[in-house]
Amino acid sequence: MTTRRDRCTLDALNRLDETEFTRALGDVFEHSPWVAAEVWPERPFADVAALHRSMAGRVLSASRSRRLALLRAHPELAGREAQEGTLTGSSAREQARAGLLALSRDEIARIARLNADYRARFGFPFVIAVGNYTKRGVLREFERRLANDPETEFDICVEQVCEIGLIRLERMLGN
Amino acid sequence: MTTRRDRCTLDALNRLDETEFTRALGDVFEHSPWVAAEVWPERPFADVAALHRSMAGRVLSASRSRRLALLRAHPELAGREAQEGTLTGSSAREQARAGLLALSRDEIARIARLNADYRARFGFPFVIAVGNYTKRGVLREFERRLANDPETEFDICVEQVCEIGLIRLERMLGN
Repeated sequence: MTTRRDRCTLDALNRLDETEFTRALGDVFEHSPWVAAEVWPERPFADVAALHRSMAGRVLSASRSRRLALLRAHPELAGREAQEGTLTGSSAREQARAGLLALSRDEIARIARLNADYRARFGFPFVIAVGNYTKRGVLREFERRLANDPETEFDICVEQVCEIGLIRLERMLGN
Repeated sequence: MTTRRDRCTLDALNRLDETEFTRALGDVFEHSPWVAAEVWPERPFADVAALHRSMAGRVLSASRSRRLALLRAHPELAGREAQEGTLTGSSAREQARAGLLALSRDEIARIARLNADYRARFGFPFVIAVGNYTKRGVLREFERRLANDPETEFDICVEQVCEIGLIRLERMLGN
């Protein structure tokens, strides 16, 4: 469901001014255009991998409170935003592709319970690069990761945020 | 691609004699009907989860050489058996569903290299429950797991074998 309009070239990106560049990549990290703004001075990027390395590097070296805010900027899976239709375009596409916006009543109840348990245990939403998993795999990971200790799980979520960013860049720019 | 013919009920399974039971479940663990034969005396099983717990328990408590033989009974991803059409029915369905039997030339080359590197490093094929992953996810896991130490990777493969068994039971019996 990526339209031609969403696609651009790295060459064109490398020539944008800071405002345009930040707007173009502002959604690669959910509701967090600061990541794009911070790497703008490092242009030109040789390839998608180099651009992603820079962006992920900013995320991984950000303060803990900033990383926590980034996690909290993510929607729950099949959660309130999905029901209200207020997901970002990228999240809506990703959740739809994984079958997470077309669930049975049992699946909806199971995910609602997992969302609530996870939020109560960790204080941030479950983040997973749904582009790497089937619906079954997402649910298995959700259950498995609930047993992690909070620090491990925080780190896994930040890694998953970076993986989501890579998938979004590949979709925009090709890989 | 599960046909009605593949499906049966747990109730019917519980009533089979040892030979029939082992034939019916002989493929749940790849080329390893001994797992089914060993749990037959434990019938009746209350549900799919109980049956799977018994079967996975036999695998996890088997000797190391038997677990290694079980790993080695698995085909490579998009490997020789896939090219020669000699995959088991279950493996063929699973690899096809994940898009692993319809690859671009670049993807075929990438997987061939990963298969060779992995086999050289660990001495058994890369085992992954492809029912939980997209094609992209399979490739990411393949690259990520190549960096594991051999003992960790052995254990992950045995876990994945059990997960594959669960997926096959769910497909046969419903979940």
